[in-house]
Amino acid sequence: MQKHYEFDEFVELRPTAKVDKSRHGWRAKCLQRLIRLDLPVPATVALPTETVRRIAAGQMPDVAAIIECFGDEMLISVRSSPENPEWGGPGTVLNVGLNNDMHARLVETHGAEAADALYLAFVQNYAVHVARLDPDMFCAPAGPGAVQAALAMYQEEMDSEFPQNPVQQLIEVLRSMARAWEGTTARLLRQAKGAPAEATLGLVLQQMALGIGPGLSGSGTIQFVDSVTGKPLINGRFRRQSQGRASADAELYLTRDPRGPSLEDLAPEVFEQLRGYGAICRQRLREEMQVEFTLEGGRVSVIDAVRVQRSARAGVRIAVALAEDGVIPREDALLRVEPRALTELLHFQVDPRAPRDVLARGIAASPGAATGKIVFSAAAAQASAARDEPCILVRRETSPEDVRGMHAAHAVLTERGGMTSHAAVIARGLGLPCIVGCLEISISGREKRLVGPRGRVFYEGDVITVDGSNGDVLVGTAEMLSPALDDGFQTLLRWADNVRDIGIRANADTPEDARTARNFAADGIGLCRTEHMFFDEDRLTVMREMIFADASQDRRLVLERLLPMQRADFIALFDIMAGMPVCIRLFDPPLHEFLPHDRDGMRDLADALDRPLSEVTRRIEAMSEFNPMLGMRGVRLGVTIPEIYDMQARAIFEAAVEASTRGAQVVPEIMIPLVSASREVELVKSRIDAVAAAVRSETKAEFTYRLGAMMETPRAALRAGEIAEHAEFMSFGTNDLTQMTYGLSRDDAGRFMSTYVNQGVYAEDPFHILDVEGVGELLLIGAGRGRATRRDITISVCGEHGGNPESIAFCRAAGFDYVSCSPFRVPVARLAAAHFALLAPKSHG
Amino acid sequence: MQKHYEFDEFVELRPTAKVDKSRHGWRAKCLQRLIRLDLPVPATVALPTETVRRIAAGQMPDVAAIIECFGDEMLISVRSSPENPEWGGPGTVLNVGLNNDMHARLVETHGAEAADALYLAFVQNYAVHVARLDPDMFCAPAGPGAVQAALAMYQEEMDSEFPQNPVQQLIEVLRSMARAWEGTTARLLRQAKGAPAEATLGLVLQQMALGIGPGLSGSGTIQFVDSVTGKPLINGRFRRQSQGRASADAELYLTRDPRGPSLEDLAPEVFEQLRGYGAICRQRLREEMQVEFTLEGGRVSVIDAVRVQRSARAGVRIAVALAEDGVIPREDALLRVEPRALTELLHFQVDPRAPRDVLARGIAASPGAATGKIVFSAAAAQASAARDEPCILVRRETSPEDVRGMHAAHAVLTERGGMTSHAAVIARGLGLPCIVGCLEISISGREKRLVGPRGRVFYEGDVITVDGSNGDVLVGTAEMLSPALDDGFQTLLRWADNVRDIGIRANADTPEDARTARNFAADGIGLCRTEHMFFDEDRLTVMREMIFADASQDRRLVLERLLPMQRADFIALFDIMAGMPVCIRLFDPPLHEFLPHDRDGMRDLADALDRPLSEVTRRIEAMSEFNPMLGMRGVRLGVTIPEIYDMQARAIFEAAVEASTRGAQVVPEIMIPLVSASREVELVKSRIDAVAAAVRSETKAEFTYRLGAMMETPRAALRAGEIAEHAEFMSFGTNDLTQMTYGLSRDDAGRFMSTYVNQGVYAEDPFHILDVEGVGELLLIGAGRGRATRRDITISVCGEHGGNPESIAFCRAAGFDYVSCSPFRVPVARLAAAHFALLAPKSHG
Repeated sequence: MQKHYEFDEFVELRPTAKVDKSRHGWRAKCLQRLIRLDLPVPATVALPTETVRRIAAGQMPDVAAIIECFGDEMLISVRSSPENPEWGGPGTVLNVGLNNDMHARLVETHGAEAADALYLAFVQNYAVHVARLDPDMFCAPAGPGAVQAALAMYQEEMDSEFPQNPVQQLIEVLRSMARAWEGTTARLLRQAKGAPAEATLGLVLQQMALGIGPGLSGSGTIQFVDSVTGKPLINGRFRRQSQGRASADAELYLTRDPRGPSLEDLAPEVFEQLRGYGAICRQRLREEMQVEFTLEGGRVSVIDAVRVQRSARAGVRIAVALAEDGVIPREDALLRVEPRALTELLHFQVDPRAPRDVLARGIAASPGAATGKIVFSAAAAQASAARDEPCILVRRETSPEDVRGMHAAHAVLTERGGMTSHAAVIARGLGLPCIVGCLEISISGREKRLVGPRGRVFYEGDVITVDGSNGDVLVGTAEMLSPALDDGFQTLLRWADNVRDIGIRANADTPEDARTARNFAADGIGLCRTEHMFFDEDRLTVMREMIFADASQDRRLVLERLLPMQRADFIALFDIMAGMPVCIRLFDPPLHEFLPHDRDGMRDLADALDRPLSEVTRRIEAMSEFNPMLGMRGVRLGVTIPEIYDMQARAIFEAAVEASTRGAQVVPEIMIPLVSASREVELVKSRIDAVAAAVRSETKAEFTYRLGAMMETPRAALRAGEIAEHAEFMSFGTNDLTQMTYGLSRDDAGRFMSTYVNQGVYAEDPFHILDVEGVGELLLIGAGRGRATRRDITISVCGEHGGNPESIAFCRAAGFDYVSCSPFRVPVARLAAAHFALLAPKSHG
Repeated sequence: MQKHYEFDEFVELRPTAKVDKSRHGWRAKCLQRLIRLDLPVPATVALPTETVRRIAAGQMPDVAAIIECFGDEMLISVRSSPENPEWGGPGTVLNVGLNNDMHARLVETHGAEAADALYLAFVQNYAVHVARLDPDMFCAPAGPGAVQAALAMYQEEMDSEFPQNPVQQLIEVLRSMARAWEGTTARLLRQAKGAPAEATLGLVLQQMALGIGPGLSGSGTIQFVDSVTGKPLINGRFRRQSQGRASADAELYLTRDPRGPSLEDLAPEVFEQLRGYGAICRQRLREEMQVEFTLEGGRVSVIDAVRVQRSARAGVRIAVALAEDGVIPREDALLRVEPRALTELLHFQVDPRAPRDVLARGIAASPGAATGKIVFSAAAAQASAARDEPCILVRRETSPEDVRGMHAAHAVLTERGGMTSHAAVIARGLGLPCIVGCLEISISGREKRLVGPRGRVFYEGDVITVDGSNGDVLVGTAEMLSPALDDGFQTLLRWADNVRDIGIRANADTPEDARTARNFAADGIGLCRTEHMFFDEDRLTVMREMIFADASQDRRLVLERLLPMQRADFIALFDIMAGMPVCIRLFDPPLHEFLPHDRDGMRDLADALDRPLSEVTRRIEAMSEFNPMLGMRGVRLGVTIPEIYDMQARAIFEAAVEASTRGAQVVPEIMIPLVSASREVELVKSRIDAVAAAVRSETKAEFTYRLGAMMETPRAALRAGEIAEHAEFMSFGTNDLTQMTYGLSRDDAGRFMSTYVNQGVYAEDPFHILDVEGVGELLLIGAGRGRATRRDITISVCGEHGGNPESIAFCRAAGFDYVSCSPFRVPVARLAAAHFALLAPKSHG
């Protein structure tokens, strides 16, 4: 008699059945959809998670009633159906119901060989996975007498005959699978993949389509796009006389192929039928699906269909194609692409289709791929960088002493460590490909030797490739895919721009950066640092002369020689950006960065300046600082040595006038760095206004400009109300602001950041992910007070956080006008911004 | 006919007259009080400020009516009476009304010599100050014919006779004085002394008491306390046949004196009368007054009485004595002493009574006095300090390059600069005596020579004394007054303790500091920095061994050797503080501060550790930091190398157990430095709790302790709500908090701080005066959030700002429990706290 639960113990999948993913799992849901689409799915029953949970607890459902769904000759598969396919689950058991009688019938219908193969496979599988017997005893290959031997072995081990009752078989299979889900290892594995602690399992029971027997029989999968490129391409595999993994026969090409016979040739109508199913899935399930099918004497059964596995670039192309074909709205296409996945398109990747000689596998700790010569020490990495030779830093594990070497390397590989080890954290921060925890290799730094599996040995200078996207260490060079900025990519981002409601600018210091920013369709330049412009050798000499000049008039004269060069720098940027906003940050670094620090350099400088070495040495020493980050830099230089900003302002204005004659009117934005008091802005503004007036009068050209403050100190955020009196825009430099809010130098934090992240002191490296709780609050305070003073003030973030989706969500929620990030992060930022606009639309007005 | 103003044009001073300081000035008010006290004050008329303002504008009052108050033989003085005596005003004019007729009468009554002297003085004074004639023409000494010559000269220059009409004389005198007040120079001078732009002048007209003539006549002043010590002592001066400044005769001692005749001898009844007036003034005016008097034939007139000038130490003693005598309440005594004035008592001062050879005068830019050898360069100052020889750094002006030299010097003297020049700002920050803008000297650093007025020349090594309290540069050594912590001082501070409502603790690292803190009656130690304890030579070696230890176990073993020394340190502190709270900050500085940085030191270290020099060098280099202030220090060390805090906690607990056996139960307070996330506190707390449990079990002693966070990062303030979950107290380290809030390293800020203060970018050096707007807001945020989590959390400030009255007012208003400052600032802090409690009492409950 059937027990009376308050729920259905099982459900037979029909178009009208009530099936839902959270109760019956993804596979049940998917199969029901296929049934609704009228695909030839064999009879299928879904057990909801509650039933499976009770089975694990020893409470069996009415198995006899379930079996009735499959008619007299029950032969079924049992498959896992958790809510999310990523969570895994116990392996499929095929051919449940197979016993001596059925075997005898199969011998008649399909021949002894096929029948034996099926029965042997079932007995072995059952013995190992259901009865939990020693796998070594149940691994004999198919052959005469193998079935009888397996049955005998089973009986000996279990002290009972191999179960002949299909009901008993099914009960044991269900119990075994339900309990496997509860095992500790299984739980840890799925939790590592993001499953919640209380995740439950559904099961799917399906009538077997045998795939063996007379006529064209077999099993296979087919998909209609390329998993790597996303381009239309029919591929998959088909094996005659097989049941999926339990392959028994040679492979058949799916499409016409010169190398051998193909399904398309042998059974064109079946091929067309499959193609039709693919088209139906794509249209009705609104997704590119991989269809799993079985042929029995030319009759197609669809066993399953799963979302096509895809690379990031394929994901973009598929989503765009679906939208362009009207299958899904553009908004859906946008939401189907994870913004961070675009990063992969911007990095070099090892071509997944190319042959690869995998030396070892480790944890993919920082994405991208790089090839280079092995070095075993930070010093060797620096030497290699000095020779311009790409190198891979290989260490047992890294420590703070290696950070400078990591800067010099193209990738990092460590024997030990996990996702939050020192090497992993630092490499992600530096954007370096990195593999950690590569336990298959053994490194001896002293002997400069790397030993891989199977005794393969490598020495310093040998070439390897690190694929930080999937954790593979490859021998030698590898074929690389260049960054993929194809049509699909461009189209998706154009759509993103149509929906996003926050600006995305790029941090760009050079014409190259600016061109990249334009290519990636940034809304302008949000941060152009000008100091690099003084490091060219010819300019450096002039800078040093300026630093050593004693009087304002002397400094002014020296700086006049830099003026035309700076003007040319700015003209180039304005021309490239063609009227888009360009925000130029005035000179920021401490002057001592421009001075030599070794004896030889000082001697050269003394010669160049024609001053005594003792004076040069003394002045350089006097300019050294205990904490340069907190020293004489930024607007502090602007206030105490105003001649530098005067020159820069003039260069900007003259460049704007010239660029405007060729194209759109340029309205330069001038940003004052390291503000901590409103009076700093006021003082600089009055001088810059005077320069603007002078340039207007000299050039007889009319132009305007916008002046703003870079908000990098906590005090600037607190005093934003006053600062806004003099500033038309405020841009938060979250790098420095993070350093000061935490009292933490980014350059020095590497010594303990991994310990801190590991111990949960910081949830994340705050230089990597914006610290919303601390730094974020200062942003909100600053923005609020700035707006209270000047309602239409432009507010933005221009630190490296700017490109992180988390930061964009934060800034957008706070009503910031734009974020500015490195040019290569602009695409991610554009897409992330579109996501937030779609997921949390702002009310209008 | 008298004009009808809406106000009284003048008021004759009588006991019932309506006189008030804001309308008639301080002098009128004071004289009226003396009249009320029935002192023999000659007839006096006060002109209110409105009358004087109109006079300056050309609108004369009814002078004839005024003159009527003085009877027929008008001979009067006219004196300034601004609201505040500090504001100055035009000089007194005596003997208005003197003309040929009066002169003739005086010849009869007082003799020709006296009459001539008076008339000549008046004519000269009138000519120069009223008629504005050339002083050189009117400076002839008294003598036969001098009066006639002066009158003739006047007539020649003015083309009219010297005015004979007393009304006309008075009109001219009044007009001249009223206009002098409006002069630009006069205005600037009084504004420099704090007068508002709209400050006005009253005038006082008083019948002359001649002070010359037959019998005992003359003028003088008398006071009854010593201006330097504040002790009871009759002193002053008396000149026979004189009218105050216009001295004409020899001086007479006031009190009996072996050196000559005295007033006390010659006219004991007059002397007693004056003593009585002093007593009346003290009792009724509640102040020690200096009485100005005139004798005419033995008849006493009291011309004026002013508050006795006094040194800071005299001010304390006078206030305390008045309160002890019941003349004023103790609260008034407290309020009469400016807290910062106590600083003077704590500094060495040049004894004002000792002879002084003043080389030159400059601007007193930073108080205190010091004697030392002249050095002309920062390098020489450092060399001198290395030899333990006190030196005075003498520069034309200082620049950032001199800062290290200033650290080494005992005082600073510059030829140029003002109160906000580089030297002044830095010296105040360092607590160094400093004189700037000493234009009378000329310095040649190249020739190592200082040339003073009158060609006096000094060379490097010559000894001078800098009196930064009054701006005097003295030749050679000077007699110094040691800090004055006498009975009056102690009494006043005891009274202060009775009224103040905020705790004052001391920052004390050593037993010496702790003893000073006890002497100054601090409420405990608010900050005991422990790192100095590791710098003794024997401990340093152990520290270095610990730093180079590779494993936790090794570090632990090495630190065990430091444990007994640390324990002894803490026992000493607990014993001295005898049960008062002692807040110990755990180890804070970066470890590289303990390592040698020169080649020799590294070689020694390599020897000591028995490791290769290359390894020592490499590890020291790897530990160097870009920004040590923002690096691996404070709790970051505590989390990554927990063995140090474990050892310190054990030392603290074992010391507390031992000290408690001898006296009051010790409840140590343990403070975690540089917190930026609550988890840091949580992690350290769990380890320290474990150490406490271990010590309890080993010693079988019960003890408790309090754990708190030092709030030095902006983020700590923002996250105070979470931090308070693990912290029983929070103490704001405003030094570091200021550095991080401004993004400004204190060590490096000297390069531009004076420019910044001069240009008004910062109103004050924020390391000197707490930045209420920025840093202060973070304090309020932190305190508010901390209390929201833990209502009874103890909140304090322990940065160097703690002792500033401004900071105390701020912390008290914010409801902080205590401030902690350097031991020598404790007295100022105690008094300032009392002031705020009296001036802005908190409502109870």
